[in-house]
Amino acid sequence: MNQVLIAGSVALDSLETPSGTAENALGGAATYGSVAASLFAPVHLVGVVGDDFPDEHLEFLKNRNIDLAGLQVIEGGKTFRWKGDYLGDLNQAVTHETQLGVFEHFEPTLPPQYRDADFVFLANINPQLQLRVLDQVRHPRLVLCDTMNLWINIAREAVWEIFKRVDIAVLNDGEARLLTEEDNLLRAGKKLLEIGPKHVIIKKGEHGALMFSPDSSLFVAPPYPIEEVVDPTGAGDSFAGALIGYLAQTDDLSIENLRRAVVYGSVVASTTVQGFSLQALRVLDMQEVERRYQAVRQMSAF
Amino acid sequence: MNQVLIAGSVALDSLETPSGTAENALGGAATYGSVAASLFAPVHLVGVVGDDFPDEHLEFLKNRNIDLAGLQVIEGGKTFRWKGDYLGDLNQAVTHETQLGVFEHFEPTLPPQYRDADFVFLANINPQLQLRVLDQVRHPRLVLCDTMNLWINIAREAVWEIFKRVDIAVLNDGEARLLTEEDNLLRAGKKLLEIGPKHVIIKKGEHGALMFSPDSSLFVAPPYPIEEVVDPTGAGDSFAGALIGYLAQTDDLSIENLRRAVVYGSVVASTTVQGFSLQALRVLDMQEVERRYQAVRQMSAF
Repeated sequence: MNQVLIAGSVALDSLETPSGTAENALGGAATYGSVAASLFAPVHLVGVVGDDFPDEHLEFLKNRNIDLAGLQVIEGGKTFRWKGDYLGDLNQAVTHETQLGVFEHFEPTLPPQYRDADFVFLANINPQLQLRVLDQVRHPRLVLCDTMNLWINIAREAVWEIFKRVDIAVLNDGEARLLTEEDNLLRAGKKLLEIGPKHVIIKKGEHGALMFSPDSSLFVAPPYPIEEVVDPTGAGDSFAGALIGYLAQTDDLSIENLRRAVVYGSVVASTTVQGFSLQALRVLDMQEVERRYQAVRQMSAF
Repeated sequence: MNQVLIAGSVALDSLETPSGTAENALGGAATYGSVAASLFAPVHLVGVVGDDFPDEHLEFLKNRNIDLAGLQVIEGGKTFRWKGDYLGDLNQAVTHETQLGVFEHFEPTLPPQYRDADFVFLANINPQLQLRVLDQVRHPRLVLCDTMNLWINIAREAVWEIFKRVDIAVLNDGEARLLTEEDNLLRAGKKLLEIGPKHVIIKKGEHGALMFSPDSSLFVAPPYPIEEVVDPTGAGDSFAGALIGYLAQTDDLSIENLRRAVVYGSVVASTTVQGFSLQALRVLDMQEVERRYQAVRQMSAF
């Protein structure tokens, strides 16, 4: 069975949405990504936390078939904390405070057994750290990366560098516009392909996603529509985690299977946003995933 | 062959978009709707113009298999004129000036041969006028109506009244939110169904459309993505015109065929916005329509 290596932030989030608030809840791009991917395949997690990170979260991750040999726990260190809200626009987080904590001096070192990973997801994190993780993987078959507006604004060169080395770059519509300075998403997607990734996936939230592939191949992926977004945190991370988890499980990198993987990503992300933190994602099972996948097929058929 | 009765505005538009300007160009909801529908079926047009309306436009419409017996030409009257821009947001027109002209005292009277129409499209116009047109049709098989934010704001009761009497109500995402006071489009669509239409179609511009039908049936319609919107005027009108034209041509009101009709509507609307006024729509032929339809199928298959 293929395993998925996932590197990125593990965090404690405090946030407010129109539906309510959460305090010091389990969060982080690698956390959402790993839990989503673990629905499909075993996961090797690379990240760092302080010794203030609750044991119950470690236990939860271990019980999800997520290997934590690559998760450094720093004695006396503080876990990365993010504070923000989605009160103005559910699609756009407003950051109040970021405490980097142990991430400030994080030096990712992959355990030997991680270096042969075939499927690698470089979740949202400083692109310099993404590059350092990637340098330690011997011969990955598929590398997927995510990013965010912060890195595009302060480390654009490094984002381009990482984009050149990945098979799939995933970003949302706002980030695609910011990185390419193109308002139209078709033009933005084409520009991003020229930077270097084999495939570019632009997530459009409630409107689904667009996947740009070689030979001008475009996939217009339908969403799984939901009536209420409780907390959008982690939607993109769980989208990408489920996508690469499905590819690892099926061991099929054809364009047809990539399209299915995008829909599985949407389906899992649609669940993530239905609860605060990982509340909805952690109780999602494959029966519900398949039910939603078939519902998307049915809703979009013509 | 089924014919389509289309009632609504025939206008001269002056507008500015990021791509340029147009002065006194052919416009109006019934114009766009009729030209789009005429790709699929013969059209009977109900509307009014002044004697300042250029003959070349009348000739053009006649040559499109559009019957003008229902188009009143008022001696000494002024054709309806709209002036606006799309400079801030391509999805949202800003109106600078509206000269109602002959529409101020318009009393729609259907020629006798129009009263047996099976397929009726009440294009965007004062909902009181839509009701008066509908009252003159004996036993329509399918009635579709469009509306706009203006009527929702100043004549909400009449909009509800017309919605109760139609088979398909078409509106865009902003109008759906305005009319239902629901931000989430799934909830908005369900509320609109409760008002009375058998089907509700919410257009989402570049993101496609949603069709809500009985028994909680939802169609998530993919868009035909384009790289540059030159002039969004008439997109919704040509969407609805093509949709009802296709239904009239195929004479099939099954839910499967309605889904195909929505995609044909998107395909024709995607062409409309690629030129100012009717420049792109008027040269669209069925070969290109079919090519785009097949492209949408291919782009959205998984």
